Amino acid sequence: ITVVSRSRDLSQEMVKKLIHQSQEVKTQSYCPYSKFRVGAAVMTLDNCVFTGCNVENACYTLGLCAERNAISKAVSEGYRSFKAIAIASDLCDQFISPCGGCRQFMREFGSNWDVYLSKPDGSYQKRTVDELLPLSFGPEDLSMNKVFS
Amino acid sequence: ITVVSRSRDLSQEMVKKLIHQSQEVKTQSYCPYSKFRVGAAVMTLDNCVFTGCNVENACYTLGLCAERNAISKAVSEGYRSFKAIAIASDLCDQFISPCGGCRQFMREFGSNWDVYLSKPDGSYQKRTVDELLPLSFGPEDLSMNKVFS
Amino acid sequence: ITVVSRSRDLSQEMVKKLIHQSQEVKTQSYCPYSKFRVGAAVMTLDNCVFTGCNVENACYTLGLCAERNAISKAVSEGYRSFKAIAIASDLCDQFISPCGGCRQFMREFGSNWDVYLSKPDGSYQKRTVDELLPLSFGPEDLSMNKVFS
Amino acid sequence: ITVVSRSRDLSQEMVKKLIHQSQEVKTQSYCPYSKFRVGAAVMTLDNCVFTGCNVENACYTLGLCAERNAISKAVSEGYRSFKAIAIASDLCDQFISPCGGCRQFMREFGSNWDVYLSKPDGSYQKRTVDELLPLSFGPEDLSMNKVFS
Ligand SMILES: [Zn+2]
Ligand SMILES: [Zn+2]
Ligand SMILES: [Zn+2]
Ligand SMILES: [Zn+2]
Repeated sequence: ITVVSRSRDLSQEMVKKLIHQSQEVKTQSYCPYSKFRVGAAVMTLDNCVFTGCNVENACYTLGLCAERNAISKAVSEGYRSFKAIAIASDLCDQFISPCGGCRQFMREFGSNWDVYLSKPDGSYQKRTVDELLPLSFGPEDLSMNKVFS
Repeated sequence: ITVVSRSRDLSQEMVKKLIHQSQEVKTQSYCPYSKFRVGAAVMTLDNCVFTGCNVENACYTLGLCAERNAISKAVSEGYRSFKAIAIASDLCDQFISPCGGCRQFMREFGSNWDVYLSKPDGSYQKRTVDELLPLSFGPEDLSMNKVFS
Repeated sequence: ITVVSRSRDLSQEMVKKLIHQSQEVKTQSYCPYSKFRVGAAVMTLDNCVFTGCNVENACYTLGLCAERNAISKAVSEGYRSFKAIAIASDLCDQFISPCGGCRQFMREFGSNWDVYLSKPDGSYQKRTVDELLPLSFGPEDLSMNKVFS
Repeated sequence: ITVVSRSRDLSQEMVKKLIHQSQEVKTQSYCPYSKFRVGAAVMTLDNCVFTGCNVENACYTLGLCAERNAISKAVSEGYRSFKAIAIASDLCDQFISPCGGCRQFMREFGSNWDVYLSKPDGSYQKRTVDELLPLSFGPEDLSMNKVFS
C-alpha cells in the first residue's frame, strides 16, 4: 500500500530474471565434496543484484552457502536492505530451500522480504523470511531485559 | 496413536524438569562477548538427558550454541533420536528461540520432535522442529534427482 | 619448572590412554556425508577427560568437528583449562590434524597446551596450540586500542 | 625462480594498494555486536582484486569474516587461484591476523600464497598460508587411505 511496500513487489519479469541470475552463478559453485551446486541472487531495495554460489571446504563446517555468499557480497558494497533473494540448485523435483543458517543470515537484515525457491525449469515458490524462520531470534533479542537469577 | 508417538509426549513434570535442567547448565555458559547466557537440555527417545551451554569465541563465528552443544554431546554418546529439547536464557519477557543454525542441526535428527522455548520463570511455548523450520532442507535432499543443464 | 607447568606434562601412559579414548569415541561419529570418522578426547587441568566425535549436517557448514564437540562438553561441565587434546581418525598414513576452526576454538582457552595428532596404530605427533596457530587472533585482541580513521 | 612463482610476488606498490583496498572495504563492515571492523582484499593470479568485510549476526556463530567474504566473492566470479590477501582492522598496535576458520578457508585454495597482516598506518607483516596453518588438514586428506578397525 505504501510506496516502500509496493516497491518490494517484483514484476514477473524481474522474478524470472532474478532466478535466471541465481542459475547462472550456480555454475561457479565450488562443491567438490557434495557435488551439490547452489546459486543465489539477492536484490537490494534499489534493484541492484548480487550473486553468490556455495564454496565448500575440506573441513565441511567451514564452507559457505550460496545465499550467505550473495548477501555478504551486497553488504560489502554497502547494502543492508533487501527485497528478495532467489535460490537455484540442480534438484529436478524439489524447490530448493535455504538451510537454517542462511535463513538466520537473511533475517539479520529484516524478516519481511521475499525468498524465491526455484527449480531448474524456472518454476518457483515464494516465501517471506519470516515464514521460513517463524518466532525468529534476532538483533533486538540481544538487548532485551534480562534476569540474572 | 502408536506406542512410539505416545512415548514422545512428555508429562508436565518431565517438561518442568527438562526446562530446569536447561536453566541449570545455563550457568556454565562461556559468553564473555555477548554476555548472553543460554542453556539447553535434550531428551533422547529412552529419556536420557544431555545438557549444553553456549561457548563463544573471540572469532565470533566459531562459537557454539547451547542447543548444538547438547545434541552433539548426546550424539557422541550414541544417541540420534530425540523427543524434545528445552532452551533457557536470561530474557525475562521473551521465550528464547533457537537460531536458524540450531534449527537445522535439530532437523538432521528428524523434524517431528519438540522444542520448548522457555522463560526464566519456567513458563514455555512448545513447537515442533518442523514448525520452526518449515520447508526444510534435509538429508534426503542431497540424494534426490539432479539435472545438470 | 613450576607446579602448574609440570602437571601439564602427561606420562606416556596417560598419552596412550587419551589417544585410546579419542579412538573409542570415533566410533560414535555421525558422518553420513564425508564418511570421515573423527574422535577427540580433551583432558582438563585436573585430569578429567571429555570426548567428542564429528556430527555432520545435510547443510555441511552446520556440522561440528570432534575437537569442538569434546571441548564444548567440558565447558558445559564447568571446565575452561586444558592440558591436552588427542585426535583420532581412520587415516592410516597421516597424523590427523585439526582444522583451522578447531585450532581457534582450542586457542580460546589458551595457546600453551598440547595437541596429540594420532594414527590408528596409536603413534602420534605432539604440537602446542600455539604451534598449530601461530600469530593467533585471540580474546585479548578484541579489547586492544583502536584507531577510527 | 619459475615464471609462476615470480608472478606471485607483488611489487611494493601492489602491496600498498592491496592493503589500501582492504582498508577501504573495512568501512562497509557490519559489526553491531563486536564493533570490530575488518576488511580484506584478495588478489587472483591474474591480478583481479575482490574485497570483503565482516558481516555479523545476532546469532554470533552465523556471522562471516572479511577474509571469507572476499574469497567467496572471487570464487563466485570464477576464480580459485590466489596470490595474496591483505587484511585490515582498526587495531593500532597489532598486525591483524586471520582467525583459524579463515586460514582453513584460504588453505582450500592452496597453502603457498601470501597473507598481509596490516595496521591502520599501512605497515604490515607477510606470512604464507602454510606458515599460518602448519600441518594443515586439506582436500587431499579426505581421500587418503583409511583403516576401518
Ligand atoms: Zn545455507
Ligand atoms: Zn543457535
Ligand atoms: Zn575442526
Ligand atoms: Zn576469520
